[in-house]
Amino acid sequence: MNYIHTDESAIYHACGYSNDNSIYLSLGLESFLLTDGRYSVDASETLQNNHKNTKLIIDRDLISRAAKIIKKSKIKKISFDPKEWDHYSILRLQHNTDTVYVQKLDLSHKRRIIKREDEIKLLSQAVKLGAKAFDRFARVIDSVGIGKSETELNFLASSSMSKLGEMSLSFDPIVAIGSNAAKPHALPTKRVLRRGDLLLLDAGLKYQRYCSDRTRTVRIGRDFTFRTKQNFENKKIQKAYDTVRKAHDKAISKARSGMRARDVDALARDVIDRAGFGKYFVHSTGHGVGLDIHEMPYISSRSRTKIADGMVYTVEPGIYIPGQFGIRIEDMVVMIDGKAKVL
Amino acid sequence: MNYIHTDESAIYHACGYSNDNSIYLSLGLESFLLTDGRYSVDASETLQNNHKNTKLIIDRDLISRAAKIIKKSKIKKISFDPKEWDHYSILRLQHNTDTVYVQKLDLSHKRRIIKREDEIKLLSQAVKLGAKAFDRFARVIDSVGIGKSETELNFLASSSMSKLGEMSLSFDPIVAIGSNAAKPHALPTKRVLRRGDLLLLDAGLKYQRYCSDRTRTVRIGRDFTFRTKQNFENKKIQKAYDTVRKAHDKAISKARSGMRARDVDALARDVIDRAGFGKYFVHSTGHGVGLDIHEMPYISSRSRTKIADGMVYTVEPGIYIPGQFGIRIEDMVVMIDGKAKVL
Repeated sequence: MNYIHTDESAIYHACGYSNDNSIYLSLGLESFLLTDGRYSVDASETLQNNHKNTKLIIDRDLISRAAKIIKKSKIKKISFDPKEWDHYSILRLQHNTDTVYVQKLDLSHKRRIIKREDEIKLLSQAVKLGAKAFDRFARVIDSVGIGKSETELNFLASSSMSKLGEMSLSFDPIVAIGSNAAKPHALPTKRVLRRGDLLLLDAGLKYQRYCSDRTRTVRIGRDFTFRTKQNFENKKIQKAYDTVRKAHDKAISKARSGMRARDVDALARDVIDRAGFGKYFVHSTGHGVGLDIHEMPYISSRSRTKIADGMVYTVEPGIYIPGQFGIRIEDMVVMIDGKAKVL
Repeated sequence: MNYIHTDESAIYHACGYSNDNSIYLSLGLESFLLTDGRYSVDASETLQNNHKNTKLIIDRDLISRAAKIIKKSKIKKISFDPKEWDHYSILRLQHNTDTVYVQKLDLSHKRRIIKREDEIKLLSQAVKLGAKAFDRFARVIDSVGIGKSETELNFLASSSMSKLGEMSLSFDPIVAIGSNAAKPHALPTKRVLRRGDLLLLDAGLKYQRYCSDRTRTVRIGRDFTFRTKQNFENKKIQKAYDTVRKAHDKAISKARSGMRARDVDALARDVIDRAGFGKYFVHSTGHGVGLDIHEMPYISSRSRTKIADGMVYTVEPGIYIPGQFGIRIEDMVVMIDGKAKVL
């Protein structure tokens, strides 16, 4: 199949190199990486090491150069993912051509749903680095975090977890206090952290471009850590917390290759439903993770995707009671020998 | 004219509110803002204050809801900018409809090329905040910057200039030392800052969503500041620096409303050409700034755009000698009473 990519992760997966201005073409037995002059040295070195057969093309106007290469190749059909491309670029690519552009939704993501062994190693390393970053931030909270606002804590999370920019974060961390944790995607506020508060932290690090993703909800007592066993003074919070933890643990222990994703979702959702919190679990149980922070498989109540060995995804049930509190516990698992193993 | 936007700045300009998941529709006398439930409170409050006539619509699937509203309105033609939309969304919008979608390249950017008085005030404030941020970073360099790598300096620039995340940066600052400054868009390296080094800093702050943009190149002597008068020990660097400064000053003092953008570019380029550095000025002289960091007008050697009162743009000539050094001086100007005034 002939195909064309412009998404950074899609191109990296195809040839081991990419940047924010590149196009990858696979035409019959030939493949091409197109980028601009700023990246010529990097691109050439990386391709030499990883993908000698991919031909590097340096140009200012990648779209018109790609159109020329496609024209010259005389191929009749080329596949592309309409989600990867802005409409203007597709119009330019398809201008004045006889080549048929075939839409293949999620072309690269579908190829990436089963991770190779080397990818699982990188993801496992990203998770380990992420866990260490949670520990670093715990020490920062203990030493200077009390009395700081969510906005300041968000900055402290980014700076300490990334080791002052030395490591890349998978996304801007979510740090929410008490009732603010009930809004799954709220922006940080001026609310200030006090001892005894509930704190939700959702963050991850990248290792060689592969992402990790983790969430912990904790009570900021003396000597707190981001472990999954937590003691809250408020009984309702404790009940909700124990329910989320049970849902998280059950989905992980009972997930099996061959099940559908919606059945894995149901493992967690049933626990929360039975405890009477069903209507407060307002999102799906998880999502795949790889070069992108959100990938296939999606562990939702509607997904018929069959879970298989080599898939890597999050298990992250939650309970969010508006105006009161929010709780989420999230870990990444890989399917190995038919079972889910926590990374 | 009926039109539809999805770009954040375009929507903000149209109705005074936007977020990362919204669509704006202007259909005859009616206008609609579509977004999802996370933003309903914010969106409703802001529209009440700014644009009472814009109807707020909350939905999970913005594209299909927009398609329904357009269908119901029975309008025949709707304009859109193909650069704002991903191809997949346009396919979904246009699915099964009789409405004609008319491509209008740079629809919102063309409307934003002349700034209103209130916008000029906000941009002026952003520039003032940006200048103060340069001063904060100068003090950070003086106290802890010597011996730090570009990567660390990049982090220190972001954290000090944003006041630990309290203010928004227009973009990730560029901090480059010595010969690294010759690569206009290089990533930060492990090269360490020493007293006497040349340092290039390109950064800006936002104020109420409006961006500022500034560059200074300095010698890190004792008591250095980011002023435009600088003394370098190396004579070639000093000659190049004085040339860039002269080019910068001349473009600003001689720019007039009614000139074409390419003639403003030529004002700076001629100075650099005559000093013998012409082939080292590898980019255009400037670009418009507003809600986006790069807007119209583009001050390039090919642009026939007529400069007019109310336009706001950067003047940023540079000289980059590979392996040796890079120099750029950048300020923002607004055209008032036919002349360029530095913001």
